[in-house]
Order: sequence, then structure tokens, then C-alpha cells
Amino acid sequence: MSKTTPLNRRIRLGMVGGGHGAFIGAVHRIAARLDDRYELVAGALSSKPDVARASAEELFIAADRSYDSFETMATQEAARDDGIDVCAIVTPNHVHFPAAMAMLDAGIHVICDKPLCLTVDEAEQLAAKVKETGLLFALTHNYTAYPMVREARQMVADGKLGDIRLVQVEYPQGWMATRVEDTDNKQASWRADPAKAGMGGALGDIGTHAHNLANFVSGLEISELCADVDAIVAGRKLDDNVQILMRYANGARGMLWASQVAVGHENGLKLRVYGDKGGIEWAQEHPNHLHFRPLDGRPELMTRGGAGIGAEGLRGVRVPPGHPEGYLEGFANLYTDFADQLGAFLDGTAPDAASLLVPGIQEGLNGMKFVEAVVRSGREGATWVRL
Amino acid sequence: MSKTTPLNRRIRLGMVGGGHGAFIGAVHRIAARLDDRYELVAGALSSKPDVARASAEELFIAADRSYDSFETMATQEAARDDGIDVCAIVTPNHVHFPAAMAMLDAGIHVICDKPLCLTVDEAEQLAAKVKETGLLFALTHNYTAYPMVREARQMVADGKLGDIRLVQVEYPQGWMATRVEDTDNKQASWRADPAKAGMGGALGDIGTHAHNLANFVSGLEISELCADVDAIVAGRKLDDNVQILMRYANGARGMLWASQVAVGHENGLKLRVYGDKGGIEWAQEHPNHLHFRPLDGRPELMTRGGAGIGAEGLRGVRVPPGHPEGYLEGFANLYTDFADQLGAFLDGTAPDAASLLVPGIQEGLNGMKFVEAVVRSGREGATWVRL
Amino acid sequence: MSKTTPLNRRIRLGMVGGGHGAFIGAVHRIAARLDDRYELVAGALSSKPDVARASAEELFIAADRSYDSFETMATQEAARDDGIDVCAIVTPNHVHFPAAMAMLDAGIHVICDKPLCLTVDEAEQLAAKVKETGLLFALTHNYTAYPMVREARQMVADGKLGDIRLVQVEYPQGWMATRVEDTDNKQASWRADPAKAGMGGALGDIGTHAHNLANFVSGLEISELCADVDAIVAGRKLDDNVQILMRYANGARGMLWASQVAVGHENGLKLRVYGDKGGIEWAQEHPNHLHFRPLDGRPELMTRGGAGIGAEGLRGVRVPPGHPEGYLEGFANLYTDFADQLGAFLDGTAPDAASLLVPGIQEGLNGMKFVEAVVRSGREGATWVRL
Amino acid sequence: MSKTTPLNRRIRLGMVGGGHGAFIGAVHRIAARLDDRYELVAGALSSKPDVARASAEELFIAADRSYDSFETMATQEAARDDGIDVCAIVTPNHVHFPAAMAMLDAGIHVICDKPLCLTVDEAEQLAAKVKETGLLFALTHNYTAYPMVREARQMVADGKLGDIRLVQVEYPQGWMATRVEDTDNKQASWRADPAKAGMGGALGDIGTHAHNLANFVSGLEISELCADVDAIVAGRKLDDNVQILMRYANGARGMLWASQVAVGHENGLKLRVYGDKGGIEWAQEHPNHLHFRPLDGRPELMTRGGAGIGAEGLRGVRVPPGHPEGYLEGFANLYTDFADQLGAFLDGTAPDAASLLVPGIQEGLNGMKFVEAVVRSGREGATWVRL
Repeated sequence: MSKTTPLNRRIRLGMVGGGHGAFIGAVHRIAARLDDRYELVAGALSSKPDVARASAEELFIAADRSYDSFETMATQEAARDDGIDVCAIVTPNHVHFPAAMAMLDAGIHVICDKPLCLTVDEAEQLAAKVKETGLLFALTHNYTAYPMVREARQMVADGKLGDIRLVQVEYPQGWMATRVEDTDNKQASWRADPAKAGMGGALGDIGTHAHNLANFVSGLEISELCADVDAIVAGRKLDDNVQILMRYANGARGMLWASQVAVGHENGLKLRVYGDKGGIEWAQEHPNHLHFRPLDGRPELMTRGGAGIGAEGLRGVRVPPGHPEGYLEGFANLYTDFADQLGAFLDGTAPDAASLLVPGIQEGLNGMKFVEAVVRSGREGATWVRL
Repeated sequence: MSKTTPLNRRIRLGMVGGGHGAFIGAVHRIAARLDDRYELVAGALSSKPDVARASAEELFIAADRSYDSFETMATQEAARDDGIDVCAIVTPNHVHFPAAMAMLDAGIHVICDKPLCLTVDEAEQLAAKVKETGLLFALTHNYTAYPMVREARQMVADGKLGDIRLVQVEYPQGWMATRVEDTDNKQASWRADPAKAGMGGALGDIGTHAHNLANFVSGLEISELCADVDAIVAGRKLDDNVQILMRYANGARGMLWASQVAVGHENGLKLRVYGDKGGIEWAQEHPNHLHFRPLDGRPELMTRGGAGIGAEGLRGVRVPPGHPEGYLEGFANLYTDFADQLGAFLDGTAPDAASLLVPGIQEGLNGMKFVEAVVRSGREGATWVRL
Repeated sequence: MSKTTPLNRRIRLGMVGGGHGAFIGAVHRIAARLDDRYELVAGALSSKPDVARASAEELFIAADRSYDSFETMATQEAARDDGIDVCAIVTPNHVHFPAAMAMLDAGIHVICDKPLCLTVDEAEQLAAKVKETGLLFALTHNYTAYPMVREARQMVADGKLGDIRLVQVEYPQGWMATRVEDTDNKQASWRADPAKAGMGGALGDIGTHAHNLANFVSGLEISELCADVDAIVAGRKLDDNVQILMRYANGARGMLWASQVAVGHENGLKLRVYGDKGGIEWAQEHPNHLHFRPLDGRPELMTRGGAGIGAEGLRGVRVPPGHPEGYLEGFANLYTDFADQLGAFLDGTAPDAASLLVPGIQEGLNGMKFVEAVVRSGREGATWVRL
Repeated sequence: MSKTTPLNRRIRLGMVGGGHGAFIGAVHRIAARLDDRYELVAGALSSKPDVARASAEELFIAADRSYDSFETMATQEAARDDGIDVCAIVTPNHVHFPAAMAMLDAGIHVICDKPLCLTVDEAEQLAAKVKETGLLFALTHNYTAYPMVREARQMVADGKLGDIRLVQVEYPQGWMATRVEDTDNKQASWRADPAKAGMGGALGDIGTHAHNLANFVSGLEISELCADVDAIVAGRKLDDNVQILMRYANGARGMLWASQVAVGHENGLKLRVYGDKGGIEWAQEHPNHLHFRPLDGRPELMTRGGAGIGAEGLRGVRVPPGHPEGYLEGFANLYTDFADQLGAFLDGTAPDAASLLVPGIQEGLNGMKFVEAVVRSGREGATWVRL
């Protein structure tokens, strides 16, 4: 990993959410730690004070920097000389907006888990706030940070696929094929609760990843879509399966399927993009490989760090080809690139252009518009709606 | 291969189409020959008399049984004591209807390539004729005859997947990603010509296979669909890409993608079916494998002829597990099963129930209704239409 | 399939072995039939006369051409004007030698299943007889006739891999992991019986295939080998697992593993060859694919009939890329090529050079020398022996 | 990750080697950091003082704890109240022995990269020293720490494969297929230099991994072996290809292939173990999967964290199934387990039994005996030698 920032210290990181029993908080912490660019020094790790304190202690956070609320953390950290530079928000969706607003208002940069918030309106408020404050904002659509995804994006940008005609993206999971939200599965229960998850179930949780990934690689934006949105498991309050036809501004066609009831799939995010000169295929469960199929040529297996990979695909590679890197390494690439951005910001210099692929507030706003469009299409009986 | 018929001779086969330069005719001949149940004794192999004669000679067809037209063949063969029992129709689509009607009118059983014909109206006439004559009619949706597809169908029927919730089927090819119909590619030129192919391009050629396969395995029928139907290659007269949302009568949801411009794909027919107890996946390019993923269990690799395969999946298996069988063997299973049906008919006995999975006139009619519904949906801007 | 021979009739085929309950006889018959170059007109299908007669009747062989012994068949068919041109020998190994000698003595060409016979001495007698009679002799090492294997061979011959350094070949099966020869498994019982199988168990049955395939593709011959030869299942009379180090005349190194006790493998023949410019990998269970990995380039997936395949790899291809061909089609390629040779012989013309890849008496002799060397090495405690 | 140790601080880590331009040092640092159990506080990062200092500064190591030699570091750190608890040795092989002796003599625990040292004699001295001091010693045969490898080991231990009959292990790489050691490739140059690498080239570098992995999973030890040891690239001083026949004490047979000239392979470590009840297969490039093939059952795909995984296979799992973990996570499992051991040692308590799978001095000694036996066999013309 290149370290492009001259900042001669670790970036001070705070965290909202991520206490005992959480999943994604631990992922963020590993991602922050992997390249040693951050130190976790403060947290409002749980809405339950005792959980927050115990979690902080376990994470070697000083007792006086474990807070009972994100509002307190924002205020007090902003007042310290050694206050946090940036705050990671790793709560269920409904807390993203208020926590991010509190941090931005306190002058603290933000790393926010996806989806950005609950509504387009919230998203627009956040976007305005980011613009107003000039602070940096990262949205952890982590799948875009796999090196081979970045390589794929660059191949499209370089015209190696020609004009893009088709985008096929799918994200099947099977873990919610039964009423798992009625068990003690904490991950399932908030995801199935509209008050915490928002308008989308599978749509918000993983459909937004699929949408983001497809746009990131293809460089295209959806102009209209038609979505069948279903809660297939009886009694479920939010969708667990969405099937979408998409039309892109350039005339390309697409399909998106996101499901949490596709029994037997673990985390089957897969993207295929076809142009008039070639096609590519990438699957998250085998992230070190990218399949390239040129028109009239033989299919080629592109490997992380392997033959013919460009600068974009090499960025973020830590170990040689054949030594697999995975989900945590991809996630860490976002953190490390964002560290480059933050370091430059703190040093008052221009960031390395290569560090700017981290999804941000615009991608968050796009995602919320996508969610709203899909929900609207679904409610109207799967009719076409414009974005 | 079990031979269940007592008929102590080979079935006498005629053929319409399949002369020099044809593709599917040779496939039908190999399929007929593989299990030695047929002998090819007559043909109207080409609409060009000299091609017809030369082709017949090469196939060891007696000169007096090489005909210049299917009408003549029907009449003259029906008049012979040793006339053909059955006729294979392997022409471009637009000849299916008249040739099949001629054969049925002459009392000759029919094996017809897919799609059945050009319109629902033709299909209904054919269905009425079949009913009226009592003759046997096979439609070569060959992919349903792969042993592991039949095993999959039986697993669904036996409830091993539980209630079916989702059907994902796709059939990407890339060979028409350029204007190949403007070259001397005979296969492409008729497929891209509405006068010969009918209403559908990729839709009729491979979309009907995908539709038939999905219904065959899932046991479900589409109640309504919404289809984006496009000619992506500029100037093409028929669709080369269709993307369809489907709703089934039982409430299940589905997606179907058929494309002939998906660069890099050869013959990528793939079916996935998910119920509340398990999911299956089958891909035509690896037809000897079936992936079964039970709810809460480990994914299992089912192999042709391997452990735990039932009678339906064993029927049509010629060589041990690990000795791959392919496209021709699957195609031959249709011919051999139909030979069982024909043998029983000719002997005046009841056919083996296991021989009855061969798609027939009803599947052909269903296919034409599917094509018409998709075309209608597409023309109306990809709106929902009922079947 | 090109038909290069001008012979204007089917070749008349006889068969020794292959009656009810046999496995490989049915394979030979399908292979002979697939491209319609042969008609089966005579047989000594079983050493049990009633089985022979019943089997012949089922195969539409005239009653007077069903023989009780191969000796009778050789004599009587040789005396007929319409006698068989060629005889397929598909018995257990111990009958290969006498049956082949009888046919050759009667002036009948031979297609013999592998391994050639029981000893190097027998093999040399056969080789001398073939030379003396000038008759044609095919040995059905069928795996060499898969199109992608032939493509691999040509790539090596064309120097695309550079100088060959390493050959890794393996052939694991699991079906004899228990004492299956003590059950009513006819295939297992003769294979485990030295009187019928010869010196080698897994060695003769599948090790010879692996050896032949490696030599065919690499173009190399073994100069010395060191073999651990074991009967892993207690009480088994012949080996069921052989592990061999090999040194080739050009200095290349190799390993060969053949096992019938590798639980879970079906028919896992796999070959890898590495030169100083590239490596290839081919696996029999996915025979339509060949993996090519050039030095400093990206791995390429080569597909049967696909982009960049040469004439050698296209020969024997019947259906387009993506329509899988399998074991029977590969086997049929041997029969069809041999039909080209036979047709030319019968016509008194020179055979198409492309038809000459069919393994013959020399490969059979090489195979027996390999078997004897391996057995010798094994008996001496796995020491190095020269071939 | 469970944290079983009560130690309420991070373990203080020093490092020998791993300065600019090194590969494995960065891997060790990430592995140490991943679960936040260590802090790197001291280093003798390079034998070149300026490189050592610059590297230390970049890693936030205090200037006074960057040492010019490991001897100084051992002495001075041992004298500090806050001295390092443990030292990671990540140099080329020839430094392992003196550095480890120095640390042990100073009372500092050791984490040593593999292979342990240069000779069996050195290994025995180290083993005696470890025993004498009572200090903890970890050897980073990291591949054994992949969760699915541990699951495989437990399956064997639990008898799920029955009696082990066959072990097939291979480790092909292609990166040294040319004289890369003559370029500025630092990784290649020391690996090809007997003074730094020791007796083995590919043998020591990756053959020892293959040997260790096979023993770890199978629970078997080699009793004798026969090895063909070659420098295939002309002029290379150490082997780049070894092919080995192995016999285990229980009568099982095995083959081991390690190569750095197998063009096209990246890091292809693969292990297959077969017993009389089942077989398993694991490949390092797809480490989240384990294939289990039971006798008479269907092949099962076992996934990291997925259905039916036991406690051993779940230990070290950080993210849900389908979120791939890779090389760094596996490496980190060694560090984290060793942290558990160290924490218990420092607390004066008994370590969690589950933390004891980390390879140690015994595995290092076994590895050196393996290397010496292979070299001896090779020098004697690939004869059988006893271990």
C-alpha cells in the first residue's frame, strides 16, 4: 500500500454504534486498523450506556471518551485539542442522518455506513450540509473498493468494452428465507423493521450495494426503472425480494435482482457488464478474479495483482497474486483511501487523485433516489418510473 | 438406455430440411441415430432440388425417396407400405406449420423443431389437427431432456424445494453482437428475418427454450409478464435482447433474460429455482451437474448418474458418472423417448409413462402464447400483460 | 464432421464382446453409429452362446452372423463377400490378444479396446502381425480424441508452450474404494482378477489412459520411472493405486497418479503440461475447456470450437461452442477418423493425414512397456527402472 | 473473534527484518494488527541502519527503539520495563536461527517465519533452547490457520474420513520460471541463494508449507520418502521443482509436488486427503471453501462459517459466510491465537486449549528433517530415505 499522505500521525477516529452484538462496527474497526492509518480514540458505541462503556473498555478507548450519545460525543470531541478527526457511523439506518448531521455540525468528517439515510429528503439535507461545511464524507459501499472492481471500472472507462449495452447485476442471499427476524437475530430484526431500516428491506440493505456497484463500474446512471417489490416471507413488513428492469441514459438495458430469500446463497453479489467490444463478470465471493471476454477473442482470467492490471487495479493490493484478499481488505481500501483524503485535508494539500474513488455523499443521494424510485414503482404495481 | 418398446424394427424416419449448410438437421440425425431406434429413409432436405438430392445421397437415402418438397414427400410416403412412420421438421421457423400440417394430414407422426410456428393462431390449428388425427407430436425443446434437468424437475415435484418462490432463468449468447446476419452466416440470416423467424429474434430462438425449461422444472405457468424487448444492434429487424419480469400463478416471481448480444457467452442457458426449503441451479454448459442447496444444509453437488439420483434422472443415462454426456445425448433422449411412444403406438399398446416427458403440441402452443405476450408487452413500452 | 472418404457405403463392423451386461461394448456401438460411418453386421458378443444370440437379436444383427466364438466369426466373415471390414474387440483384457490375432490372420482390420493385451510379449507379437499383414489397427485410448486434447497436442507441437519441463497427470476414481469386486459388479470383478485384467489393476485400467494421454499431448516418452504400486483395499489382488515419478528423455519431469480408491472422484483424468513459455490444463470431466496460461500473460479459456482454435482442434467438432460434447463424441472421433483410414484403404487411396491421430499398435506396445515397467518398479520397492 | 485472554493491554511486539522492500514483514504487521492484540513498539528492521531508521519512523516506532541489530534490540528491550513481550523474525532464512537464539536468551518470546532455520542441527539447538527457557515459540506456517483448514483437520481427527489412505498435496507457483533472481527482484534473489535460503529452494520456501499442511490436516507423519529434486531453470543454484513419493507410518501413501516454475500458477497450494469413508479437498486460492466427498454420498460444499461447521472451523471467523476472508486473515489467526497463549503466559494462567494449534518449534524441527531428507534423497538419485 502506498502511503501518499505526509501526515505524520494516525488519524483520530470516533465511532457511533458498533458495541457488543453489532456486526458492521467490528468490520469498520478492522478496516480502519488494517493499514494502520487510524486510531480509535472515542465512541458512542451503544444507545445503552453500560454496553457502550463495556465495549469501549474492551477496545482500549479511554473511559472519558466513551460517550452515552453521539450528540455528546460530537460536542465534547470538537472541543478537545486532540479530538477526533473523523467519525464512523455504523448504526442501523435510522441513526445515520442525525448522527451524521451532528458530526458535520461539530466540524467532524464522516464515514457513514450505507444506505445513507431513510429518505431522499434527509439525503438532500445531508448533501447540503456537506457542501456548506466543506467537510469530507465517505459512504461505505465497500464492494467498489475491491481491486478487481476498480480494474473493471477502469476498463469500461478506457473503452475496452466499447459502448455499454447491458448491465446485469444480482445480489442473492438466503439468510432471511424464514422469519429470522422473530428470533434473537439482531441483524435481522432491525433490517426487517421499517422504523429502523427505512423504506427498503433487501432493497436498502443489499439492493443499494448492487445499484451502486453497477453504476460505479459501468459509469452509467439509470434513467427509468420498473420494479417488482415483494415481501415473500409471509408477514414480513419490508421487501425481501426485488426484481428490476432498468434503462440507462445511453440506451443500455439492465436487470437487477436483490433477494434475501434465495435459499442457499450466502453473499452472491455478481455484476456483468457487456459492451459492443467485450464483456466482464465479477463475483463478490471470488473477488480476486475478473473475467474478461473480448469480442472474437478468448475469455481471459484477470487476477488481483496479476498480468496486465493497471494502476487503478493495483491500488489497494497488499499481497501477491494468488494470496487471496477478501471482504475486510476491500473495506480497508475505502478507509485507507479516505485516510489519504483526510491527511491531505488536514495538511491543507490537494489529495491524491487516486484516493477519490471512495463513494461519498453524491452516491448516497443517488442511492436514496434509487430506493424511492423502486418503492414507488413497486407500489404502483411495477410500472415504469423515471429517476 | 432401457429399450421398453417391443417393436422389432427401427422406426422409419423422414426429414424436412437439414440439407447442406444446415445446423440443426445434423443434430436431429445424430440424435435419432444415437440409440439406434430410427433409420432415416426419406427426405425433403432442401427447397433447392439439387441440394436436396446431393444431401440425400450423402446420407444414404435412396434416390427415389429424396423429394423436392415436403408436400410430395407426405403424399408419396403415406402411399408406401414401408413409408416413414414419423417426420422430423428441421427447417427455419416459417416452414414448421405447413410441413407439420402436411405430415399430420398424411397420417405421419411429427417431430418438430422449436419454436412451434409463427403465431398463436397457427399453433392452435396445429393443436386441433393433432387432436383430430390422434397422431403423436414431439417438439424438440431438447434442454429438458438432459438427465439432470429431469432430476431437477422431479425434485421440485417431490417437494424437495418446498413451495416455489423464485425462478431465475437466463440464456445469454454473444454470437449476434455484430451484424452477422449481413455476412454469409446462414444461421444468422434467417434468424434475423421476420419472414422466416416470426415475431421473435432472440425471443423465439432461445427465449422460448428458457421459458420452456423454467416451466418444465418449476411446474409453474406464468400468469403475467412485463418485457423490455430490444434490437440492440442497430438496424436489426428483430429483437436480440429481452428482459422479462414474470409472475406465476402461485405467487412466485421470476426473471428471464435472453440475449444474443451478450459478448463472450456461448450458450449460457442457466436456471435457478428457489423454494422455501431449498434451491437448485443448473447450467447448460455443465449439464452433468446439478447444484442443490437445502435450507440450513450444505450445498450438494448432484452428478449425472451419481449418488442419490432418482429414476427420472437416471433415465437417458448411457455412461457412468464422470464420463460427460452433452448436448447431443440430451437431444437423443427426446428421440429415444419418442421412439418408445411411437413403438407403443405402432404396436397398439400403452406407452411407458416415463417416456411421456417429451415436450409436445401443448408446450408448443404455450411457447407461442409466451412469444406473443412478450412482443405485446414490449410494443406497449414494457407494460404488464396477462397470458 | 468432414467426410473425407469417397467410400460410398457404410463400413461393415463386427464385434467381439459387448453382450448383455457389458459396459464398453455399448460405448463402441454408439461411437461407431454417431457419424453414420459403420453398420454393425456381425458379432461374437458373449462367450455364452445364448447371451450372444439374444444380444445380437436386440442389435438387429442377422441370426446367421451371430457367432459363438471369435474364431468362427473370423473364419466365416472372411469367407463372405459382404464380410466385415473391421472388428471391434471390447472384451476383458485377456481376450484382446487371441481375438485380435484371429482377426488379423483372417485379413480383418481391428479396433481394440485398451490396454492392448496382457504382456509386452503379446504386444510385440501383435505388432509384428500388424506389420506383416499391413492391416489397420486402432486402440481406443479415447481421451486423446477429445477436440481440446488434440488442440493441446498441437499447441505443444507448435511450440506455444516452449520447451516442455513438467508433466502432471492424474486419474483418480473412487468406485473401488471398497471390495466392490466381491459384489455382483461385473465391471469390478474382472478388473480385479489378474487372469482377466493382467498385471495391472488401476494401472492397466486407467493408468494406461493417463500415460497415453500425457505422451500424446506432450510428445514426450518416459525414459525412466519410479512407481509405488499398492493394493490399498485389503485382500485385493491387483493394485488400486499407483503413484509414479517420471523422467522424460528431454529432461522433463513428471508425476502420474492413478487410483480407484480416491473416494469421491468419478472419472477425474486431468493433465497439466508446463513449458518455459506457458502451461496448459485439461480435465476430462469438463472436456470442452482447455486452460492456457502463457508466461507473463493472462490465463485464457479455450473452448471447443471457440475463438482461435486450429484445424486439429476443430476436427471432430459437431456442434457450436457452448453446446457441450462429451465422452461418447470423443470416442466417436476415433471411430470416424478410423473410418477415414479404412475408407481410404478400401479405396486404395492415401488416407487424410488428419485422420492418423488414432492411437494404434505402437501406442499399445508402449502402453504394455509402461505397465511392465511400473509393475517391475513396484515389485522392487519403488526403485527407478528404465523403459 | 473471541478474546479469551484477560490481559488488559496490547502485547508489545518487536520485529527483526521487514524494512523497506521486504514482503513478509508487512504481512506480519497486518496480521498482528488485525485483531488489535499487539502494538509494534521496537524493531531491527534492516541490516542497513538508515533503512532500519526510515522504516521504523514510517511505522510510528519511537526512534530510540529502532535498533541497528537484533542483538542490541534483544539486550536493550529485555532491560526495559516496557520492553517487548515477543519478537517477530521476518528475515531471510539464514537470520532466523541467530535472531531467535538472541531473543530466547534475552527472555523474549518468538514468532518466527518459516522455514525454521538452515539445518536440523540448528533446529535441534533451537528446540533445546525453547525447552530450557520455557518461552513460547510460534512458527508462521500460516496456511494451517485458515478456518477451513482447521475444519478439515478436525474432520480427520473426528474420523469423518475414516482411516486415511492417501494424501495428495501440491504447491505450484510460476513466478520463478525464468532467471528472475538475476533481475532486481529481491524476493527471488535471496530465495535462490544457498547462503541465505539454505538447502532448499522451492523446497524450503513452499515445499515446507505443503509438508506442514498435509501433516497438520491428516495427522500423519512421513516415515519414508523418495524425491526428485531439480533446478529446472538452467544455472539456478537451488531446486525450483521437487516431486516426492511419500509413505506414512500408518501405511498411507502420498505425493507432494512443489514448483516455482509451473508457469501460470500463482499460489496454488492444494491439499487432498482420502480415507476409507470420504475425501476432502482444499485449495489456498479459494480458502473459504472445503469440498467434502463422502463415500456413497454426494459431494458437499463446506463454507467458512456456513452450515455444519464445528467450533474449530468457526474459530478465527470474523465475517459471515459469503464475505470472503483471505491470506491476511488466516495469517492473523496465528497472531491472535498466539496472543491468547502469550496473554495467558503473562497472566500466569493456562491458555485456552483452542489457541494451541499455532505451529511451533516441533513443527519447525519436523520441517527441517523433511528438508534434509528430501535433499538427501535427491542427491542420491531419488532413492527412498527414512525420516
